[in-house]
Amino acid sequence: MASKTVTGCMIIIGNEILSGRTQDTNLNYLAKSLNELGVRLTEARVIPDIEDVIVDTVNECRVSFDYVFTTGGIGPTHDDITAACIAKAFDTELEMHPDIVEVIQRREAPPEVMKSRLLMARVPKGGTLIDNPTGGPQGFQMGNVFVMAGVPMVMQAMVSSLDGDRIKGGKPVRSRSIGAYLAESQVAGKLAVIQNEHPDVDLGSYPFYRKDGYGTNLVMRGTDESELDEMKDKVRAMIVSFGAEPFEE
Amino acid sequence: MASKTVTGCMIIIGNEILSGRTQDTNLNYLAKSLNELGVRLTEARVIPDIEDVIVDTVNECRVSFDYVFTTGGIGPTHDDITAACIAKAFDTELEMHPDIVEVIQRREAPPEVMKSRLLMARVPKGGTLIDNPTGGPQGFQMGNVFVMAGVPMVMQAMVSSLDGDRIKGGKPVRSRSIGAYLAESQVAGKLAVIQNEHPDVDLGSYPFYRKDGYGTNLVMRGTDESELDEMKDKVRAMIVSFGAEPFEE
Repeated sequence: MASKTVTGCMIIIGNEILSGRTQDTNLNYLAKSLNELGVRLTEARVIPDIEDVIVDTVNECRVSFDYVFTTGGIGPTHDDITAACIAKAFDTELEMHPDIVEVIQRREAPPEVMKSRLLMARVPKGGTLIDNPTGGPQGFQMGNVFVMAGVPMVMQAMVSSLDGDRIKGGKPVRSRSIGAYLAESQVAGKLAVIQNEHPDVDLGSYPFYRKDGYGTNLVMRGTDESELDEMKDKVRAMIVSFGAEPFEE
Repeated sequence: MASKTVTGCMIIIGNEILSGRTQDTNLNYLAKSLNELGVRLTEARVIPDIEDVIVDTVNECRVSFDYVFTTGGIGPTHDDITAACIAKAFDTELEMHPDIVEVIQRREAPPEVMKSRLLMARVPKGGTLIDNPTGGPQGFQMGNVFVMAGVPMVMQAMVSSLDGDRIKGGKPVRSRSIGAYLAESQVAGKLAVIQNEHPDVDLGSYPFYRKDGYGTNLVMRGTDESELDEMKDKVRAMIVSFGAEPFEE
């Protein structure tokens, strides 16, 4: 009996990713963390710091997926427009959240600087906070949309505060992985047979190239541990039948 | 006189990225390469190996952007469905492309293996090839959609074969970058003023945290070199006015 898959969509907001200046690592981190919460990252989008694009993307994604997670654009400068865009997407107003104001005011600053920092306390009306264990301003949740920082250290801290009280996931996806020095084309036919026998498990093949030769990693992903083990035995037997040595890393 | 921006959208096809198994690096590479061709990467999507999702995403993106680039899903196994999805998106058939067949048959293989490898020769009717300097099977272009491998080494080789004959770009985007040990909130007000004076240049601020302190990198991106230099002088003067030392890396 397959349980419903709980889906997540990530929206990475940031010109610096699209320009190639910055290598994103938040997607990879979030994917793994969501999996532990029983949410499958089903799509990700990288979009620029442009109001219409952010509003439209958020509105499209929040009805198509169970949860949406944004990263980026919640700092104190002119290009940090995420909070305002979320408010617009939900057709509501921004307001100063007293708990964020309190965090920001703990650190003294000249009036001009404080004014800029307090921009980070704006949250759409009805939003609830996401803890920020780094001690900086919090993120927020609005409906099924979780709004987090883009700086990986801060994003990771915020993600660590999400739990099952807040995110109702399904079963976590588990995986098995076996590699062999066999080309994808050598195993392709047999792999398709094994995949057909286990439609609830996703069987992927990923070629690798190393100093000592090329080969393929075979990765099985699904929620049923015993089915995964059964499939893994088949994949292992297939590798041996081709005269190669299966390895696990 | 601003010239029209030529836009690109990247579609990353692959469960392994969304599951967190693999860290994508193709986006970053493509972003930089496209920029040299005068194409601005305006959006990227990471989607799973699911036919309907691939077809719909390709059809949505190919009318919204000047160029679309896909990576992943063109190997010889059951989960390599990109070519078939592109054919479906363009409402046409797959056919064996003789030039890819020739490349594949150069390397001998047992009949079963050859049969799997020849799956990589399928190209939608009307598609033209993208060279693959690694010596493996080529990618292909269908309309404004460029279909490339997901393995970074192969993807990079394919991208290196794209040129101005094939991709009609605008002016390349150039950038200037200055850092300082100042918080974003310290510079936020002045930055907004400078941004307003140069609406055609995108001025981004990116906080950093290092062993010797925290600060902000200020990045200007635009097509007009002299305007960039002018803006950079203003940013530098602003940093000095705050008593900090501007640095370039």
